[in-house]
Amino acid sequence: MQPVPHIDVPPGIPGIRSLLAFRPETAGPLSALASALLVAPNSLTPAERELIAASVSARNDCTFCRDSHEAIAACHLGGDEALVAAAVRDPESAAIPAKLKALLALASRVQQGGRAVREEDVARARAQGATDVEIHDTVLIAAAFCMYNRYVDGLAAWTPTDPEGYRDRARLVATHGYLVTTGAPQGSAS
Amino acid sequence: MQPVPHIDVPPGIPGIRSLLAFRPETAGPLSALASALLVAPNSLTPAERELIAASVSARNDCTFCRDSHEAIAACHLGGDEALVAAAVRDPESAAIPAKLKALLALASRVQQGGRAVREEDVARARAQGATDVEIHDTVLIAAAFCMYNRYVDGLAAWTPTDPEGYRDRARLVATHGYLVTTGAPQGSAS
Repeated sequence: MQPVPHIDVPPGIPGIRSLLAFRPETAGPLSALASALLVAPNSLTPAERELIAASVSARNDCTFCRDSHEAIAACHLGGDEALVAAAVRDPESAAIPAKLKALLALASRVQQGGRAVREEDVARARAQGATDVEIHDTVLIAAAFCMYNRYVDGLAAWTPTDPEGYRDRARLVATHGYLVTTGAPQGSAS
Repeated sequence: MQPVPHIDVPPGIPGIRSLLAFRPETAGPLSALASALLVAPNSLTPAERELIAASVSARNDCTFCRDSHEAIAACHLGGDEALVAAAVRDPESAAIPAKLKALLALASRVQQGGRAVREEDVARARAQGATDVEIHDTVLIAAAFCMYNRYVDGLAAWTPTDPEGYRDRARLVATHGYLVTTGAPQGSAS
């Protein structure tokens, strides 16, 4: 059974979007941050950045964010949901580049806490060709999802269970980004 | 001894401000979020919101953010650093209102993780008069500092040790907010 949200958000809107609709004053910077991190031009591909987001969300046990960003990552990878699941569940054995493995390992340190990041985590990423900006962005994406995940589950926002709803939404986000249609209800019923 | 930052940030700028200067593309939304949460008009006072920020930062063991937001909270409380320290270290026994105690307890749940928040944590805050918006903002401030703390320590940003530098900066922020002078070096040497 779904928990009831802790505050009186507009009904029928999934996850973080119900919170963004509840509080437009903070929705602006939260959406702008997601856009700067995940959509803006970057030497890391959208798929790589979405995988970092999904991986941290999985480690924080945030089902809504994990399923959302896995679906978006899959969209950017031609629908390869199996590859996405493998990269999130066990990146070291997944069929992904060594540089991305190092960045996912760095992100998992950040998920544990800022002080959990060790010199060697950064050195590994650098040895695989990661630039300072890529290291910065990996740390900030991981840190930001430690926020988004707590925001969604800390307020017990509605987490739909129909995978098709996540796929529909992912196609929209993969095409148009995070700054549009934050308030539109998702097609699936609860 | 101070750790060396993991990336090549501009020297002589303390903490998160060195990271904001390194990456202006993400500095905008990050500063706008801090401003919306901590400075914008709110039924929670600036001192209450800064205490939530300082308290979560202390629990995440982020010295730079803890000292920064303790100093800003003290500025808003006529310089009462002892009250701020008491509220952060042991809120239940501190000389603060019961509603603020409940909000700090809620924030400490969020710090542990989104799923650590229980119905009774929210009910306690509501019983002390907290509104839905105040509950929302408490959760989001706590979640946001789980990001800012990881960002600062995950990149090993410079953490000055001179309390006077934090007091100087706090006076500036308490008067002008977070959107000004993000890049100005702090007076104190390392």
